[in-house]
Amino acid sequence: MTEKLPTNSVTANHEARRLIILTESHSEPIAAKTAASVIRYKPEDVLALLDTTQVGKTAQQLLGTGGEIPVVASLDAVPEANALMLGIAPPGGRMPEAWRSVILEAIDRGMDIVSGLHDFLSNDAEFCKAAQAKDVCLVDVRKNNERDVADRLNIREECLRIHTVGQDCSLGKMVVSLEIAHGLRRAGHKSKFVATGQTGIMIEGEGLPIDCVVADFVSGAVEKLILANQHHDILLIEGQGSLAHPRYSGVTLSLLHGCMPHGMILCYEVGRKNVNGMEHVPLHPLSKLIEVYETMANLMGPSKVIGVAMNSHYVSAEEAETEREKIRSELGLPVCDVIRHGPEELVQAVQAMLPQLAAS
Amino acid sequence: MTEKLPTNSVTANHEARRLIILTESHSEPIAAKTAASVIRYKPEDVLALLDTTQVGKTAQQLLGTGGEIPVVASLDAVPEANALMLGIAPPGGRMPEAWRSVILEAIDRGMDIVSGLHDFLSNDAEFCKAAQAKDVCLVDVRKNNERDVADRLNIREECLRIHTVGQDCSLGKMVVSLEIAHGLRRAGHKSKFVATGQTGIMIEGEGLPIDCVVADFVSGAVEKLILANQHHDILLIEGQGSLAHPRYSGVTLSLLHGCMPHGMILCYEVGRKNVNGMEHVPLHPLSKLIEVYETMANLMGPSKVIGVAMNSHYVSAEEAETEREKIRSELGLPVCDVIRHGPEELVQAVQAMLPQLAAS
Repeated sequence: MTEKLPTNSVTANHEARRLIILTESHSEPIAAKTAASVIRYKPEDVLALLDTTQVGKTAQQLLGTGGEIPVVASLDAVPEANALMLGIAPPGGRMPEAWRSVILEAIDRGMDIVSGLHDFLSNDAEFCKAAQAKDVCLVDVRKNNERDVADRLNIREECLRIHTVGQDCSLGKMVVSLEIAHGLRRAGHKSKFVATGQTGIMIEGEGLPIDCVVADFVSGAVEKLILANQHHDILLIEGQGSLAHPRYSGVTLSLLHGCMPHGMILCYEVGRKNVNGMEHVPLHPLSKLIEVYETMANLMGPSKVIGVAMNSHYVSAEEAETEREKIRSELGLPVCDVIRHGPEELVQAVQAMLPQLAAS
Repeated sequence: MTEKLPTNSVTANHEARRLIILTESHSEPIAAKTAASVIRYKPEDVLALLDTTQVGKTAQQLLGTGGEIPVVASLDAVPEANALMLGIAPPGGRMPEAWRSVILEAIDRGMDIVSGLHDFLSNDAEFCKAAQAKDVCLVDVRKNNERDVADRLNIREECLRIHTVGQDCSLGKMVVSLEIAHGLRRAGHKSKFVATGQTGIMIEGEGLPIDCVVADFVSGAVEKLILANQHHDILLIEGQGSLAHPRYSGVTLSLLHGCMPHGMILCYEVGRKNVNGMEHVPLHPLSKLIEVYETMANLMGPSKVIGVAMNSHYVSAEEAETEREKIRSELGLPVCDVIRHGPEELVQAVQAMLPQLAAS
């Protein structure tokens, strides 16, 4: 039993990855955001979703992406699968106890298990024993032993650092980062998506699960990510949480100060009024968040919000257009939904920073 | 072998604690801040310092506190000691490898070991085996398994929450919190010092080592501390790091948002110009820090800086007086050095908040 896959697209046995993604009872875009994102960016890896409450539907119907990828009721339905991925990210990262039997069944079939939970599979004696017996791999994407503090030395200032920040958690910062990085690459730039969360790592095949690092070492871990990737021209560093989030604001600030972005893209979801999972806590307005992000980023170096990414998934095209114009005029910044409109407006906002960086 | 002492003042065998504090080659106030603080607030527990480079001197001479507590060259010199405490807090919390032999010797003598390092003694196979053989206790003060997120529910708003915040790390936030809590108690209030770091926990006997909690769960851990202590009238919550610290700002923000203070005391050290341990990073002015702390605290609820605690350890009485008047007039806030002047001016600033809290 090893704990890490060699890359994100092959199994421990060096076979091409053929995934079933477990989303039991949680096959909605937010709860199953890991599943939805892996399907969006690695559809070729995914054979089926496993959710006994949604059998017969497709990924497209449930998650808005993934076309005809089917929902099945058991591992038996897809015997050619060679890995089971846990496709939800519950608050606190704990595993629903009901998943134990299906994980054990998958191990028994010789499947690798890929997990982004805070509760590590490889710390569970029963899973370890089973995995050892079948020589399969338990991949805990969040597992790390980071113990370095930030030093703020040897940063290459010619590498443009762009960071997605948010009004809240779970509203699309990873997708925005990926889409802008891909857009910049299409435009001929050497850009790189820098993953900081478990789903991003599952897609990109590298990165650091910063929310699972011991608190003192988060900005140090982020700094190492920057140092390792600054040979690219432009980095798109995936944001986490929000500086105004009652639970995760410290993770967000460690990340912001660890990556010292030249520019930030503010992400929000149209219509969301309260903190995700904390309905008694209202969100702050976007203008306030811009002030807060710029104040905090500027403690470490010049930085500004250069554009706004709206997630308009839950509203009509017409409502999205009205909202886009409203926010554009209110904030005086480029605004788009990278899925609905494509990322070009934000790609251009990033490109516009390159001459400034060269001149500074 | 158990991992925790029953309280902070007795050993695993329920004997009164008789400590040797190891400060080998680091017997200065900042490097040995754990030693200096335990000596200041628990002098009755401390028999000697162990530092082969300073033998014959006293704690008072080296640390500015502790009177005639001697510095010795070996464990042999103090045979009645029953526990060895590691008295330094190095950046990153790693143990100097040279300490291994003295720790093993102490275990062999049947002494408990008390450590606040990030590297846990109880994760070290050699220490564990030795401790088991001698039935002594390895106390890793930072060890925890926090896995709860903040909920922002059931907070008792009649309990006044005061939080020490800082311009930098390692400049006296714990001492300020303790002195104000003690001052309030002398004035007849039910006040409580809430420890959030290893040294505070070693003194108070309870608390949470928040810098060693997994990042996602820091504000949840702090919220639990508040819920457990809010039957007191006033809490003095020990601050950590600084919102402008390149390494630890996220820990600071998780703590600030986890404890949601009504009032903050800003702590700084007279004459310090750069971040402790990062001489290439200048500190921000106090006025900027007040703006930043108030902006970030107010995201969660009304909060303001109500006073300034200056650490004037490295300047003369006259320089301290000049500085005190300058800061008082610049910031329009009460200012004192809680050691040099006593904490009364800040105690009064806290007391002045009680009628406001009752009226709100």
